[in-house]
Amino acid sequence: MEIDRPEILAEVAGLFAAYETALVTNDVAVLDGLFWQHAKVVRYGATEILHGYAEIAAFRASRPSAGLARTLERTVITTFGQDFATASTTFTRNGRTGRQQQSWVRLPEGWRIVAAHVSFLERFGA
Amino acid sequence: MEIDRPEILAEVAGLFAAYETALVTNDVAVLDGLFWQHAKVVRYGATEILHGYAEIAAFRASRPSAGLARTLERTVITTFGQDFATASTTFTRNGRTGRQQQSWVRLPEGWRIVAAHVSFLERFGA
Repeated sequence: MEIDRPEILAEVAGLFAAYETALVTNDVAVLDGLFWQHAKVVRYGATEILHGYAEIAAFRASRPSAGLARTLERTVITTFGQDFATASTTFTRNGRTGRQQQSWVRLPEGWRIVAAHVSFLERFGA
Repeated sequence: MEIDRPEILAEVAGLFAAYETALVTNDVAVLDGLFWQHAKVVRYGATEILHGYAEIAAFRASRPSAGLARTLERTVITTFGQDFATASTTFTRNGRTGRQQQSWVRLPEGWRIVAAHVSFLERFGA
């Protein structure tokens, strides 16, 4: 299994960047389109636990569109073979450090996020 | 690409369970062994941002071994083809709701976690 084959990495990096642009501009159609339309897709947000595409779409539709700007740091995208990738990044928003991690799969309909998890770093253990 | 092929799903479910047992018993050798030994592996914990296998192993070695018990709920494991899987679960520990998400890849050395993210649900947006 080839890791980080350049053309595959470029594909996923392009999609990752498109997702980021859509996120900070609240382009709900693009965000929805990049998620797997399936009952088993999972998205954990800082304040949400979303199972299935319908819950993710409902969350997007109701999300306030202000204050979404953020700065990414330490982004790591890794591809495994031709059809699987992970994308991890930290970000800063309103002075807090967040983390976003996505699993991408190339499905018949195209590359889709099949699992995602966003959270903020805690200062103390729990 | 076949999703949730039964024998692949069974393999990953077995490894997921082995990881969970190792986690609550603080079996560091098993935990370390299930992570990809690579500079690009990423593990976000509630209070940690760990890049590369060395940082993950150092974290495991220094982690207190008390208070690790937890109860899993809403576990979703999905396999994509024969070599990729995601595992998402919520858990309760000390009255708080946590989320754990892992990406698994079958590498030449065996199935390994190539990216992981653990966090606690926040009560309010950030």
